[in-house]
Amino acid sequence: MEEKQSEKFDILNGWELLLASASPRRRELVGNLCLTCELAEPRDVDEAYPGSMRPEEVPAYLSRKKAHAYLSSLRHNQILLTADTVVINRGEVVGKPRDLSDAASMLRRLSGHSHKVVTGVTLATVRSQHTFAEETEVEFARLTDREIAYYVDNFHPLDKAGAYGIQEWIGYIGVSGIRGDFYNVMGLPLRALYENLLKITARPPVKMPLDHIG
Amino acid sequence: MEEKQSEKFDILNGWELLLASASPRRRELVGNLCLTCELAEPRDVDEAYPGSMRPEEVPAYLSRKKAHAYLSSLRHNQILLTADTVVINRGEVVGKPRDLSDAASMLRRLSGHSHKVVTGVTLATVRSQHTFAEETEVEFARLTDREIAYYVDNFHPLDKAGAYGIQEWIGYIGVSGIRGDFYNVMGLPLRALYENLLKITARPPVKMPLDHIG
Repeated sequence: MEEKQSEKFDILNGWELLLASASPRRRELVGNLCLTCELAEPRDVDEAYPGSMRPEEVPAYLSRKKAHAYLSSLRHNQILLTADTVVINRGEVVGKPRDLSDAASMLRRLSGHSHKVVTGVTLATVRSQHTFAEETEVEFARLTDREIAYYVDNFHPLDKAGAYGIQEWIGYIGVSGIRGDFYNVMGLPLRALYENLLKITARPPVKMPLDHIG
Repeated sequence: MEEKQSEKFDILNGWELLLASASPRRRELVGNLCLTCELAEPRDVDEAYPGSMRPEEVPAYLSRKKAHAYLSSLRHNQILLTADTVVINRGEVVGKPRDLSDAASMLRRLSGHSHKVVTGVTLATVRSQHTFAEETEVEFARLTDREIAYYVDNFHPLDKAGAYGIQEWIGYIGVSGIRGDFYNVMGLPLRALYENLLKITARPPVKMPLDHIG
């Protein structure tokens, strides 16, 4: 908003961050950490998960699945970042809405109580894979039909899990409070990501003889 | 970020919102509610408060004090909005830092534990005054001296209570979680403001004969 930001705070130590996500919000959030990153070319990943899986485990599982699509082409100095965010409402995974009418009914179901937002993140290098998940509780005030209709008609609910963006009008007027990391609700738990990146980048990347073959 | 925002969601019902705040963040936050507002000309208000006052009561008290400076010139259709935000760390009110070195030591004192951010808001018309306050708990991770120095040197800590903006780099890498309204930490509790405005604007402004004299 009002940053001078003359220099980067470089924690990468010779590593290159490779972001594999089509989400413009995730790109912006990684940029917020003052980290430069490369964007991976999009690859199709089947986002199915076992029906028996606990809802809270789904985003970590899907972030690992997304990572697998890129592992074979990773270079020795790259850290791959994949992520998945889901809304869990009354024990059920809520994905992205099919259409505007589905978006409105999702919001009616979120109205007036709390739900969870869980983001799973996988950080992978040629030598290691690390997955973590962060949970934030979001409390919605009771929304009127007029508020829901205004939001659905004037914003972009379709590309968002649960059909809302906390950083948009509906988040300003409708969210009475959260418990946890705000940026996690937008799609990336920034503090946890920063902390986990620091662990990986504590040592610079090393090129091993086998990296030429594998 | 990616709003279509073709029309306003008008809740003002004939009222005019008059924002008396020099904070660019508060202006932006009120704009986020899709409300148009007028800016009041700045007036000097003595921001002293009784030393015996509980820290949590200070922002509400100061928002009322700020409102008093404008009451006599309010028009019958205006809602005046004044606000004050303080950081309360280990039971003590923390204001804005005097200089960069003070900013760095404030951040060292916030590092590694939780503090409270309290915003007090007064909404006043010619006929009524209503004050409310919202509290958010903010948990900082342990910050390194290098992180603190980078933030203080590259951002603008001086105009902020507690010397940090949660919507800036230090908030991304340093805040592990919050409990309450995120926008309250930025300077205005948006959901509570919206709810309180709705109560006032439920009826349109009425011009009374006495308004010409008073």
